[in-house]
Amino acid sequence: MLGKLFKVEFYGESHGDGVGTLIYGCPPGIKISEEYIASELAKRRVKDPKISTQRFEEDRFEILSGVFNGYTSGAPINIFIYNRDVDSRHYREFRYKPRPSHADYTAYIKYHGYNDYRGGGIFSGRLTAAMVAAGAVAKKLLKPYGIEVLAHIYSVGKLVVGEDIDIKLIRENVYRNPVRCADPEAIDKVYKLITDVRREGDSIGGVVECLALNTPVGLGEPPIDTLDGDIAKAIFTIPGVKGIEFGLGFKITMLRGSEANDPFIVRDGKILTEKNNSGGINGGISSGMPIRFRVAFKPTPSIYREQKTVDLKTLEETKLKIRGRFDPCIAIRAVPVVESITSIVLADHLLRWLSWEKYIGDIDG
Amino acid sequence: MLGKLFKVEFYGESHGDGVGTLIYGCPPGIKISEEYIASELAKRRVKDPKISTQRFEEDRFEILSGVFNGYTSGAPINIFIYNRDVDSRHYREFRYKPRPSHADYTAYIKYHGYNDYRGGGIFSGRLTAAMVAAGAVAKKLLKPYGIEVLAHIYSVGKLVVGEDIDIKLIRENVYRNPVRCADPEAIDKVYKLITDVRREGDSIGGVVECLALNTPVGLGEPPIDTLDGDIAKAIFTIPGVKGIEFGLGFKITMLRGSEANDPFIVRDGKILTEKNNSGGINGGISSGMPIRFRVAFKPTPSIYREQKTVDLKTLEETKLKIRGRFDPCIAIRAVPVVESITSIVLADHLLRWLSWEKYIGDIDG
Amino acid sequence: MLGKLFKVEFYGESHGDGVGTLIYGCPPGIKISEEYIASELAKRRVKDPKISTQRFEEDRFEILSGVFNGYTSGAPINIFIYNRDVDSRHYREFRYKPRPSHADYTAYIKYHGYNDYRGGGIFSGRLTAAMVAAGAVAKKLLKPYGIEVLAHIYSVGKLVVGEDIDIKLIRENVYRNPVRCADPEAIDKVYKLITDVRREGDSIGGVVECLALNTPVGLGEPPIDTLDGDIAKAIFTIPGVKGIEFGLGFKITMLRGSEANDPFIVRDGKILTEKNNSGGINGGISSGMPIRFRVAFKPTPSIYREQKTVDLKTLEETKLKIRGRFDPCIAIRAVPVVESITSIVLADHLLRWLSWEKYIGDIDG
Amino acid sequence: MLGKLFKVEFYGESHGDGVGTLIYGCPPGIKISEEYIASELAKRRVKDPKISTQRFEEDRFEILSGVFNGYTSGAPINIFIYNRDVDSRHYREFRYKPRPSHADYTAYIKYHGYNDYRGGGIFSGRLTAAMVAAGAVAKKLLKPYGIEVLAHIYSVGKLVVGEDIDIKLIRENVYRNPVRCADPEAIDKVYKLITDVRREGDSIGGVVECLALNTPVGLGEPPIDTLDGDIAKAIFTIPGVKGIEFGLGFKITMLRGSEANDPFIVRDGKILTEKNNSGGINGGISSGMPIRFRVAFKPTPSIYREQKTVDLKTLEETKLKIRGRFDPCIAIRAVPVVESITSIVLADHLLRWLSWEKYIGDIDG
Repeated sequence: MLGKLFKVEFYGESHGDGVGTLIYGCPPGIKISEEYIASELAKRRVKDPKISTQRFEEDRFEILSGVFNGYTSGAPINIFIYNRDVDSRHYREFRYKPRPSHADYTAYIKYHGYNDYRGGGIFSGRLTAAMVAAGAVAKKLLKPYGIEVLAHIYSVGKLVVGEDIDIKLIRENVYRNPVRCADPEAIDKVYKLITDVRREGDSIGGVVECLALNTPVGLGEPPIDTLDGDIAKAIFTIPGVKGIEFGLGFKITMLRGSEANDPFIVRDGKILTEKNNSGGINGGISSGMPIRFRVAFKPTPSIYREQKTVDLKTLEETKLKIRGRFDPCIAIRAVPVVESITSIVLADHLLRWLSWEKYIGDIDG
Repeated sequence: MLGKLFKVEFYGESHGDGVGTLIYGCPPGIKISEEYIASELAKRRVKDPKISTQRFEEDRFEILSGVFNGYTSGAPINIFIYNRDVDSRHYREFRYKPRPSHADYTAYIKYHGYNDYRGGGIFSGRLTAAMVAAGAVAKKLLKPYGIEVLAHIYSVGKLVVGEDIDIKLIRENVYRNPVRCADPEAIDKVYKLITDVRREGDSIGGVVECLALNTPVGLGEPPIDTLDGDIAKAIFTIPGVKGIEFGLGFKITMLRGSEANDPFIVRDGKILTEKNNSGGINGGISSGMPIRFRVAFKPTPSIYREQKTVDLKTLEETKLKIRGRFDPCIAIRAVPVVESITSIVLADHLLRWLSWEKYIGDIDG
Repeated sequence: MLGKLFKVEFYGESHGDGVGTLIYGCPPGIKISEEYIASELAKRRVKDPKISTQRFEEDRFEILSGVFNGYTSGAPINIFIYNRDVDSRHYREFRYKPRPSHADYTAYIKYHGYNDYRGGGIFSGRLTAAMVAAGAVAKKLLKPYGIEVLAHIYSVGKLVVGEDIDIKLIRENVYRNPVRCADPEAIDKVYKLITDVRREGDSIGGVVECLALNTPVGLGEPPIDTLDGDIAKAIFTIPGVKGIEFGLGFKITMLRGSEANDPFIVRDGKILTEKNNSGGINGGISSGMPIRFRVAFKPTPSIYREQKTVDLKTLEETKLKIRGRFDPCIAIRAVPVVESITSIVLADHLLRWLSWEKYIGDIDG
Repeated sequence: MLGKLFKVEFYGESHGDGVGTLIYGCPPGIKISEEYIASELAKRRVKDPKISTQRFEEDRFEILSGVFNGYTSGAPINIFIYNRDVDSRHYREFRYKPRPSHADYTAYIKYHGYNDYRGGGIFSGRLTAAMVAAGAVAKKLLKPYGIEVLAHIYSVGKLVVGEDIDIKLIRENVYRNPVRCADPEAIDKVYKLITDVRREGDSIGGVVECLALNTPVGLGEPPIDTLDGDIAKAIFTIPGVKGIEFGLGFKITMLRGSEANDPFIVRDGKILTEKNNSGGINGGISSGMPIRFRVAFKPTPSIYREQKTVDLKTLEETKLKIRGRFDPCIAIRAVPVVESITSIVLADHLLRWLSWEKYIGDIDG
């Protein structure tokens, strides 16, 4: 479960009936239309077989509970998204010939062979549809407080295209191009790189950057439930994540304190920092500056080139040539997922923050 | 609270009575001597004022509960570590003149000014003594299973000294030199860099690498409670962390799948991978290969150079010149803390894993 | 969420699409057939309109996730039970004229009027179908350990029919008669009492007794997560519960220690107690003796007699005459629900217990 | 851990260094003086050896963390209460000769003999000092909202003295007499009964009633985290509890719905119920009427009469004659403990409630 007050679970498998999310603790009175959920789910789909999987899911869903007359009712919300375009033919092979760097092997051992291996089971990118559905609800909670979460492609392979991007560009462009870039001039370069990689039967990694704007000062509950820690844990639910860094991240380790520190300034009577090397979080608590972090996605482990593996039944080394349908760069389709997961964590911390912030307090009782 | 079965809390403040840890859920019958806890706490102390804080705490502690006749009793364990060498003179100033990139400001706002600002309160590195005490207990749980957790300095500033280090060197050297390096040839270089930085009244960042050896295959509970996610969340409880990456981490985003993937091989009848770019975790589950991750520590925000800040009472911009006692490179002293936090997470996941692994199972009931 | 390892959520509304349960943390390899779930759900249905509601649900369900090839896969299990026989005509009135002693009023205030009031929404007995579905899975976990959970009607109104009943009778008779009595001679009396009450347009309370046999010694995690406390919390999720007592319960308060205490004895080399006034739990930990507790169910608040209420819009006192379909004695249909909820708690504590019990331990490490 | 936002742990043993509580999540700015904590702890002490244990603890304590300059700081609060008057002479015997109906046996098995058996270890009434300390903090949180929690002796043995007592009497009298009765005329009768029981070397059970006044409508988070369920679970942390019932409790099972239901009325523009058979909770949510419940305490299992037990080393039946110092009626000293535990649960639910109640909501976002 993610969260303490706005609590979220994911369930479902890639080639089962579908995937879904159960949200427990959403306040009542939040307007949720099917059109809205559908529009958020659409952000996850990239209908371009040259840079995305050939599996096209229309993401038909049902809100099974918790929404009444178009508004959240205060009851647990269950959104179920049907699987339709399922092709399990190629997966039987992976059961006993695990794909390198995929979860096939760890799952086989952990679940004693009982796991649903078809399409990667719970480890499939398909689960991210459920994450986006939950994120859609979470974003609605953030909206009255003006909190906005934006993600975009920071880099693909060695091609960095998202450094110091104007927020307006992110807001406007990301979902208008299939490679989720904010800078219009980057689109063709990224597109070409990914199609080249795909043509070679290979895949490539990438970095997604995420910003959360207008968070109040004070989200996060150190010493243990820090805001960055809770974001990090949640981000690792997304398949393919290998790292996360806030603000300058690993680069800050190369700096002196005198370079790294963010001096405080006053603008229009508000306390800000001149720079934001901290990425909007200090001591595990949001500072009011934009929260900024980057997430490392590995190359899709499923590639079409022959690879070495082991036969789990005979314990002999063997070869594997994967067929099936895969994204050549999972970072691309992860962009709205990172947004969603971040929104889920922020919605939860917003509710926790309200409980202290609106507490009457002690009149020297 | 960290953990679901082996549950850990931290408490205490830098300049209060002391800091401590409460552990709920530790199995009975684990031998815990005061000497052992003391020896673990000693790893956190670097008695060299040129590269560490001038605050020297002897870390006198008491096991207030949960250990009986030298063994864990199954009851909650509370270990309290006294503060002795406390000098709060210089902190009153920071209350209303927050140190850039420190938690002074976020804490002041979140806690409405009621927080114990002395010595950084709960945001102080002092809290890591409690983390090491809890980690000491956790390590004892891992030992019968042969699980070993090792950390060392990977880099300080731009000086990388810990790449591809032989595990033997880590095991032997790290706690025999004040800069926690595994490579004997790196010690002087790191020492010089840090003393230079200190002399300039500045601080510097660094990266700590951590390895966990001999974990069973199967730790981690996806889709939500992944092993990497739980480690990440826990690591962010350590002051100064700005990022975490597993295996190749951010570098893997630059690779093709064909380069990044870890082919399976068989050695002595055991399934291994040829490389370990994944860092021992796939799909949120341990693979049996060494778990390997790196943690980015920012430069200590408390530096002796004059900095810009804001007076919280007048809302005017002002200057701050910090006095007090600080580590010039918190990464150094974080080495045993990263080990401890990782051990805590692994001990918890080990117990969770046992509950499934030792479950009799269904005989077609 | 109920549980720490075997974690259960309920969702759905009485007159929405359906109700369901999400189970996170069920070990893999447990055989779960649709026939089995259906047979457990059937225990909840009493197809006799004289003593039960006229709403007849066939409880058609789907296992949406987590079961693969007939066995639990280790992934989250979602079981969804469709609502079919829905008649919401009479509920609009209750929205602003809350039924006395029902949740209409508290829900209206808590959820600011956004709650799904139809059929009682989440407060309906309909939710207990989800509880029984989750309990069905839980029972499967208990079976290999020989743990058996049995419930029966202890009393209806002032008619006590279930004191000191032979366990064999409970096992054999409860689901063979519509009033869930273990004693065959009690059936007619209870049946007559309930039909009389129904004819008068009234309802009546009752007590359900539950036994759990063959639990290992050691379930429960005091000082906080006691076994009796966790059972109690879970039991209060069942609509209409007003109390729970273990062993002699409230009667033990009238005794002297010399009468109440359970002397230890040895039988066939096993430590037992001569009596079981403690109800199988001491210090929050199972003793190995049968766990025995009773649950108080209030009379169904929905009765056909005219009652005083308040118009929530005008804040004026008014009258309410309820139409609709209700159980005259919810205790009857609660029998399998009490069994199910108890099984859920025991399955969770069984897994927790395994994690300690199977821990290798410390060889003076 | 009790609670989700106001989170409470207890630790310590009867004959160890002391007992304590760790509170995580208490809002900052609550005035906490040592005098206040001391005055609450004093309520738990009954300095009359005729009706209470001969162990007299002065309950010297230290607030180890979380309170700064007399106010909660927002950091985890740790209160440690020293054990002083410890006499462990008589306990060695119980280690292998478990006291009937005490936790000696279940603890020995669960903790594999490593448990601190002295004075009952964690199962001792001594732990309730920690509960009262945590409750003292919780009460402070409730005060600005006008919420008041009151407990008193409802019955001792068959002597019922606390039915339908005027709230004023409870408020004024309970802590002014050693038997925690609200009705002044009951004091002598209860006192005599307990001293008689003690003289006979025996013990006796009792019932504690608790009221919570002025709770807002809406505390509780069904379908799972009901207010009554959370109170029940928490109450079972108190040693000796065998049952809990809300409102009419088990008696309501004997009634018809037409007798049991609480009709709504309007008084001074406020919606109330004519009666309060529901005990202030419907559907797991507080109704605004006084929350009223009763808790069954068994007779102290430690009595001075010879009892049958089993030697755990030889597995042979044997006799036990207990020496040591015990309360003849634990219900008496449980009165402030029930108040404290209830306050802890209400403080947590109050904070949860604020997070929804103060949520801005959706302006058709």
